[in-house]
Amino acid sequence: MEHWADRLVKILSDKGNAVCVGLDPRWDSLPAEFRSRGKEVTLDGVAAAYEAFCMQVLELVAPLVPVIKPQIAFFEACGPEGLKTLQAVIRRARQLGLFVILDGKRNDIASTAQAYADAAFAGFQVAGRVHPVWDADAITINPYLGRDSVEPFLNSARAVGRGLFVLVRTSNPGAGQFQDLVSDGKPFFIHVAEAVSAWTREHLGNSGFGDVGAVVGATHARELALLRGTLPEALILVPGYGAQGGSAEDSAAAFRADGLGAIVNSSRGILFPYAPGDTDWRSRILAATRAMISELATNTAMKHLANSAAKRGREQSTPEQVA
Amino acid sequence: MEHWADRLVKILSDKGNAVCVGLDPRWDSLPAEFRSRGKEVTLDGVAAAYEAFCMQVLELVAPLVPVIKPQIAFFEACGPEGLKTLQAVIRRARQLGLFVILDGKRNDIASTAQAYADAAFAGFQVAGRVHPVWDADAITINPYLGRDSVEPFLNSARAVGRGLFVLVRTSNPGAGQFQDLVSDGKPFFIHVAEAVSAWTREHLGNSGFGDVGAVVGATHARELALLRGTLPEALILVPGYGAQGGSAEDSAAAFRADGLGAIVNSSRGILFPYAPGDTDWRSRILAATRAMISELATNTAMKHLANSAAKRGREQSTPEQVA
Repeated sequence: MEHWADRLVKILSDKGNAVCVGLDPRWDSLPAEFRSRGKEVTLDGVAAAYEAFCMQVLELVAPLVPVIKPQIAFFEACGPEGLKTLQAVIRRARQLGLFVILDGKRNDIASTAQAYADAAFAGFQVAGRVHPVWDADAITINPYLGRDSVEPFLNSARAVGRGLFVLVRTSNPGAGQFQDLVSDGKPFFIHVAEAVSAWTREHLGNSGFGDVGAVVGATHARELALLRGTLPEALILVPGYGAQGGSAEDSAAAFRADGLGAIVNSSRGILFPYAPGDTDWRSRILAATRAMISELATNTAMKHLANSAAKRGREQSTPEQVA
Repeated sequence: MEHWADRLVKILSDKGNAVCVGLDPRWDSLPAEFRSRGKEVTLDGVAAAYEAFCMQVLELVAPLVPVIKPQIAFFEACGPEGLKTLQAVIRRARQLGLFVILDGKRNDIASTAQAYADAAFAGFQVAGRVHPVWDADAITINPYLGRDSVEPFLNSARAVGRGLFVLVRTSNPGAGQFQDLVSDGKPFFIHVAEAVSAWTREHLGNSGFGDVGAVVGATHARELALLRGTLPEALILVPGYGAQGGSAEDSAAAFRADGLGAIVNSSRGILFPYAPGDTDWRSRILAATRAMISELATNTAMKHLANSAAKRGREQSTPEQVA
């Protein structure tokens, strides 16, 4: 069973960047062509529009980026049909070779957490047969309930070569209300980070990363640098880039010197960099994706990742050029 | 718009008890009759079995208890069809006059939290029309992201007379790992409780309770007493009764002297107090429900609630007896 981190690192190196596109479909922002289909729009109609839009986004970004992160909330908001759309989108993303982080920030007491974990990874087991539900490569979870609530996710992920990202420091303006409370001379989020660091060390891949990552907002550059040190073996998922105010410079601190160790997510900034009536939305999405890749590549660590991908690309194409 | 707490207090007083039945369907525990229908069981078959079982449970307990609490995880575990089942179960419960707490422990940054809040309460708004999704009376949410992530839930709930229960102290054995960290001389969960207390005071109903409740596990009796004091205007949802080890005596501390202020949940203890092959499962569910009602009534506060319901019952029946 290949370790999830090794699989992820390979995809990152192949693409030469660490951009994650957040799939947060929003009805009012969709290109007009997806909203003008029905007369009376039902929830099922919204789900169908989300599916059509997300499928096109996947085709556009799959050649460029390594990771996508669907946000369950937006699919759940249109009910069961929205969740069928989510299944279809994840299935297609995996076919396209994208690494899928399902963002739901779930958690509960252990017996309930197990139900979430089954749905996320291996599937629901009935009478000896396993039925996949979300089939994600990784999911985000909330740490508030402590280790025993994380355990079912951890065991389920390990059993099928998948991974977790635990919320450590979130990207919202009010994140500090509880996360910054100081205990034993350290803010609360550092206590969570230390736990994550210990959990991830239990099962390292060949890449040197473990199977528990951390979510740390790009809106807190100082904390990113601090946490890179606290979490040497953890992959860091960095949300908050773009629309939420985080920059490439802010995100740089999340990377190791070899250009690995982090994934930077942008949702609205890539999905919706246009007015809904703009028929040229496809090229705007492509331009926004390429711009983010370049912006991230300007910091040394990311440049290293981009260069090694370019080098590998040249090496791979050499035989053909000779022949 | 009637305040959710006033509505809930009325239902509690009418039924004369504060029992919440947790709807956590589990395939392996279902009475055999629900599992023997199909030859090859699919996820849709599981969802159909959950629906048939939960509907029968609702008919059994609705005359006895005031509140039910479906746990989304178990419905989500069988995919989109499971969530259709959840919708049907909530709709039926509300028809039967039950108060519905949807247990999902969701949360995210504000713009995403808004999507969860829309789904939970008013519904998804498309082109000026609102489409209900879950239509719950209250939901559980996770506090880790701070007030700005709670805000969308709060505003959405207030707009339609619904409410929230914020995780304060959970019922799992490892709850203390982060929740007990001490900052400024107080454990972390007390900081969260103080915030909940301030939030709920912003909008009190005639009953004196606000629209933000707290989740506090029955497995922590000492904390329950402490938190009843910290949260004078908050309704407390007490999970962990029965299967998780909490007793009626432990739960007593969550109630005020007038018998109000808390709801005590039991899930497995009421749904599955029998072996799957037991054909007499209906009477076992009824017996377990009645036993829990009696057990809770043995403490003074609950006895008061039960007596006032009995008294009201006599008063209401007097005219007919005269006529």
